[in-house]
Amino acid sequence: MCVPMKAARIVNVNEPLQIQQLEVPKPKGTEILVRIASSGVCHSDIHLWEGGYEGIEGQFLKATDRGVRYPLTPGHEIAGVVETMGETAEGFSKGDRVIVYPWIGDGICPACRAGEENLCDKPRSLGIYTEGGYAEYVLVPSHRYLIKIRDGLDIDLAAVLSCSVLTAYTAVRNAALEPDSNVVIVGAGGLGLMAIQVAKALTGARIIALDIDDDKLQIARKNGADMIINSKKDDPMQRVMELTDKLGADAVIDFVNASKTVETDMQMLRRRAKVVLVGLFGGELKLNLVSMPTRAHKLIGSYTGNLRDLSELVSLAERGIIKPIVSHKFKLEQATEALQMMKDGKIIGRGVLNP
Amino acid sequence: MCVPMKAARIVNVNEPLQIQQLEVPKPKGTEILVRIASSGVCHSDIHLWEGGYEGIEGQFLKATDRGVRYPLTPGHEIAGVVETMGETAEGFSKGDRVIVYPWIGDGICPACRAGEENLCDKPRSLGIYTEGGYAEYVLVPSHRYLIKIRDGLDIDLAAVLSCSVLTAYTAVRNAALEPDSNVVIVGAGGLGLMAIQVAKALTGARIIALDIDDDKLQIARKNGADMIINSKKDDPMQRVMELTDKLGADAVIDFVNASKTVETDMQMLRRRAKVVLVGLFGGELKLNLVSMPTRAHKLIGSYTGNLRDLSELVSLAERGIIKPIVSHKFKLEQATEALQMMKDGKIIGRGVLNP
Amino acid sequence: MCVPMKAARIVNVNEPLQIQQLEVPKPKGTEILVRIASSGVCHSDIHLWEGGYEGIEGQFLKATDRGVRYPLTPGHEIAGVVETMGETAEGFSKGDRVIVYPWIGDGICPACRAGEENLCDKPRSLGIYTEGGYAEYVLVPSHRYLIKIRDGLDIDLAAVLSCSVLTAYTAVRNAALEPDSNVVIVGAGGLGLMAIQVAKALTGARIIALDIDDDKLQIARKNGADMIINSKKDDPMQRVMELTDKLGADAVIDFVNASKTVETDMQMLRRRAKVVLVGLFGGELKLNLVSMPTRAHKLIGSYTGNLRDLSELVSLAERGIIKPIVSHKFKLEQATEALQMMKDGKIIGRGVLNP
Amino acid sequence: MCVPMKAARIVNVNEPLQIQQLEVPKPKGTEILVRIASSGVCHSDIHLWEGGYEGIEGQFLKATDRGVRYPLTPGHEIAGVVETMGETAEGFSKGDRVIVYPWIGDGICPACRAGEENLCDKPRSLGIYTEGGYAEYVLVPSHRYLIKIRDGLDIDLAAVLSCSVLTAYTAVRNAALEPDSNVVIVGAGGLGLMAIQVAKALTGARIIALDIDDDKLQIARKNGADMIINSKKDDPMQRVMELTDKLGADAVIDFVNASKTVETDMQMLRRRAKVVLVGLFGGELKLNLVSMPTRAHKLIGSYTGNLRDLSELVSLAERGIIKPIVSHKFKLEQATEALQMMKDGKIIGRGVLNP
Repeated sequence: MCVPMKAARIVNVNEPLQIQQLEVPKPKGTEILVRIASSGVCHSDIHLWEGGYEGIEGQFLKATDRGVRYPLTPGHEIAGVVETMGETAEGFSKGDRVIVYPWIGDGICPACRAGEENLCDKPRSLGIYTEGGYAEYVLVPSHRYLIKIRDGLDIDLAAVLSCSVLTAYTAVRNAALEPDSNVVIVGAGGLGLMAIQVAKALTGARIIALDIDDDKLQIARKNGADMIINSKKDDPMQRVMELTDKLGADAVIDFVNASKTVETDMQMLRRRAKVVLVGLFGGELKLNLVSMPTRAHKLIGSYTGNLRDLSELVSLAERGIIKPIVSHKFKLEQATEALQMMKDGKIIGRGVLNP
Repeated sequence: MCVPMKAARIVNVNEPLQIQQLEVPKPKGTEILVRIASSGVCHSDIHLWEGGYEGIEGQFLKATDRGVRYPLTPGHEIAGVVETMGETAEGFSKGDRVIVYPWIGDGICPACRAGEENLCDKPRSLGIYTEGGYAEYVLVPSHRYLIKIRDGLDIDLAAVLSCSVLTAYTAVRNAALEPDSNVVIVGAGGLGLMAIQVAKALTGARIIALDIDDDKLQIARKNGADMIINSKKDDPMQRVMELTDKLGADAVIDFVNASKTVETDMQMLRRRAKVVLVGLFGGELKLNLVSMPTRAHKLIGSYTGNLRDLSELVSLAERGIIKPIVSHKFKLEQATEALQMMKDGKIIGRGVLNP
Repeated sequence: MCVPMKAARIVNVNEPLQIQQLEVPKPKGTEILVRIASSGVCHSDIHLWEGGYEGIEGQFLKATDRGVRYPLTPGHEIAGVVETMGETAEGFSKGDRVIVYPWIGDGICPACRAGEENLCDKPRSLGIYTEGGYAEYVLVPSHRYLIKIRDGLDIDLAAVLSCSVLTAYTAVRNAALEPDSNVVIVGAGGLGLMAIQVAKALTGARIIALDIDDDKLQIARKNGADMIINSKKDDPMQRVMELTDKLGADAVIDFVNASKTVETDMQMLRRRAKVVLVGLFGGELKLNLVSMPTRAHKLIGSYTGNLRDLSELVSLAERGIIKPIVSHKFKLEQATEALQMMKDGKIIGRGVLNP
Repeated sequence: MCVPMKAARIVNVNEPLQIQQLEVPKPKGTEILVRIASSGVCHSDIHLWEGGYEGIEGQFLKATDRGVRYPLTPGHEIAGVVETMGETAEGFSKGDRVIVYPWIGDGICPACRAGEENLCDKPRSLGIYTEGGYAEYVLVPSHRYLIKIRDGLDIDLAAVLSCSVLTAYTAVRNAALEPDSNVVIVGAGGLGLMAIQVAKALTGARIIALDIDDDKLQIARKNGADMIINSKKDDPMQRVMELTDKLGADAVIDFVNASKTVETDMQMLRRRAKVVLVGLFGGELKLNLVSMPTRAHKLIGSYTGNLRDLSELVSLAERGIIKPIVSHKFKLEQATEALQMMKDGKIIGRGVLNP
């Protein structure tokens, strides 16, 4: 017998999502079915909705060329409750509160074997390559991808850990900050704010937040930024040089990653410094090649994070050391509205769907 | 009384070096005077001779803007014998055979304190910012910068360890190769060959050498390359894909670092892969920003190496595990000729001056 | 219908293994059934056979207290061919030649999530906690635990990679050798020889082999030891000091790990040095506590290795960089004889069963 | 002309220190003379005063056997003002407020070249092997060993950074804590409290303080301990198991390092866990050898810290992220009294001399 569930799906790019009735999947082997309580709305969902990304020289990189197939149920920030388990799934019981690690790989490539499934050669991430969290239920391939959460942790805050917070966390790790580093966080949106919190809690570095919006910068300060720069009002390169004894920043973490921001990033670097590129805005950078070795600079692409890091984040969130920011809640039927608001820059922090 | 010594100096850029009589320096404090037996001729000496580097958009980056002052005695690959020591210098005696670590920093910046003096904020490298090794004697600021070498190690091979071999060594380290990595070494010149030797001796990785000269590629094979690609005859991207099950290289180490080579490098990368940029050819790269995070790529500038690494290299060379290639020997008076031959690509391996 | 298979099982400790007829398991979900072609006989199988290990103060540590249950089919070094696959298993096909990673964890503890399943809090290793490789077939919980091997790699050599070679490999990694390190390998048996090969191929360190048997030491030399010490004939501490300019060894890797060997290990250490403890001989050490901080020494327990490392080893073995040593082959029915020969020290290298 | 200065010196072990008049040293070469404003009194000064340490089997390890020579001016936690500089010293000016890095090495051993001068093969630490800080002036061998401090940083707090805080900092680093680690800090004295602060500021780990004194444990809580255990009242092993879901601690940092404490440490470890041994109390441990590999445990000796870490600590202290605890101030003439009070356990935090 077919038990139906609701899902908000992208059927045609750039058109409103459709609420469809799908069959609730039945878990086999190690699979686990999770009833979804909260599902985060991520900036990268907009790219799926639009059908791709901006590349170099005005080129458009189509999502379907990366293996995405429509119709698609997006949603990769998923928290909920264990519903049913396959016969060889273990370590969990019906009713356990869990978050889902969505960055699932093939399990056998070098990245997967090193515990970096998010960087798998052949990814099958939930909500991107397979059916995701804009739905009432999601089928998770194995108990490996679930993390139990305590009762005290709010389910909406838990949901956004697995992408927006995790991406910020891994980006900060990739910056390898030392306690006397000066780090510039470019973009004080949802991810930038989380990166500020993480850097504050775990690194001792001096944090300089950079944005074009004074309101966001004030929130950045409240979340732990030691200094703020409005790059519309001040020359960011000059300001960073002033703040760093004319040496430049030890690291820049760029949550926008557009031509213009990265061009500026490269001008504010100390020798030995790194730029961590996280945002998916895209475009092209004219990179001065000779200064890469002579200045010993590094450009590091950072993509989501691994399962071990997510379990560390859960611990930090459960103890209140990291406080995810969920500012808007929507019903499943409002998925299109949620995406549109995020696209219009009207969501500071993060929005979630509650199916 | 003034004791004179000969030095081959760049007085005017692009003009023949002049043999000048200079006073032999007298070591004070921790300083040590080294009588030079061999002094390597490095590609970067050509840049000093020409007065700078190619930047982006046809711009020329002047050496004087980086703090270089003429007249200058170039030469930073120096081996010789301890002659006299300042009163607080220690650990060495007159007559000790030594190589000189030339990448001297201010000793108090974070890089210096971390043992990465080659990446100092305010470098004072021998032969670049201070008087170097194209001379009969060189003044070394401290015993710290000398490494004793055994009688068995040829003095000319010893000399080239401190830059050409060290740069290759550090570049390979920065590539963080694993025993099942596929690494592409771009440029089978002096540094490329040493990188192949180092990767062969220490990593287990599969080494693919890439050049446009069949003769050099044959030498690359003899030095340990598992596969070779002549990029004039074959499409390097296609060949690398064939050799790596269509996954791409795990790392590329580029000893040319020109627009054209790096553009190709970026097309042959596996997910998670890195490009280590070493050469000083320069120019600009149009970098596709969005693929940096989604593909988790890294661009790593690599500049010479640190003192600890040099002492490891000495051990490897003394035991014959690494075999530096010195192909041409010149007298001090032939310094201009040596530079010209290197500029014309007529030196495979490395040339040295024997004052 | 029940299809029977043969297995050599420990039914009672210290008694001959029994050849029993068991039902061939049927794979579900991600499980894969492997037809075994070769199964290594490991020293730790002797401990299972004897029922435990020697502890401190004459105490005996029972295997059953660590969760082992009898009757047990031992065997954790398994190579063979994929026979049948569960419905969600993937990445392999019937007939693929594979080796099995036996150090299986619960998949959800921090160790497992960091890719160190061999160090899981709740291990379920094949041949120790679950049915192993002294049999015609083995059931592997997931495709994750299989590594495909090329036709050129001998199946017996492949089998021993997953424990004897992997343990040696990880021990060498834990020693963090540098190219100018002096490392002492204690015990030139099966694991010691592999450690010598690995250190030779990947580290550049100077290798000193230490044993009480001249024949084994000669084999050690052939496998790459730079120097050998027979500790029955020479004082090992004195010899190591002579060989290291009176500074001591940078690392000792002890494949015996008995009171007497480790006591000696501690006397031959340079400041900053480490002792990697691998063997399961056991006993107790009287450790001088104050010298641990003042000399900055480290004692590091090293247990088998992880899946990523095993896949690297497969690559090294396929290219002949590492050459596992299989010296004896037995039929399944000879399992008891194989164990007894190993116990009596009559197997140099490694023995395998060919079911 | 001889300019005299006062110094409090150990002339005979176990006898009161003598105030002697010594000649003020004149700096040559890179040397710098520092006028001392504050000099910390360290527990290891007591060992110098007593002439050595407790070893194994009732043995006493004499300081003179480690190269200490009496009469000696102890004191290695030194802060003050630059007075005069040798002719090649640079980077500082008369009047600069500085702290002194006292863990000086020979500058040419592998440890020194790796930036770990505190672990030099042939150490010449100030106040241990050469004249130290219980005096009006100290001669520092090079500008390398000075770190400039801002006006805002109290000079007494600055002084204790270079040993008590640095040792705690490096010990926490050696514990390699992760954000979901459970760490037990053994000994809530001066160093233990600083370790708690450091772990709180930089790791996210859950901190369990263990001591036998309720007052100290209350201070531990105020400095950031999440949980406290009085091992006189409760069974520490049982309590740690309760607090860690019966898994055990991920790391123990032992600032006592006596037979009894380390024996307990070993019983409260999770698989993969480490014990960092810092204290110099000493004695012997009966170590169970077989459980080192099977449980993958590590014992790590941790000795003071390096120059890079000290400069990071200065940054943390200047911004108030780390707050050293100086509880007692003495005049130079009170040196014996200060040592005796520390020996009697009457100083919580740290005492300093103000010459």
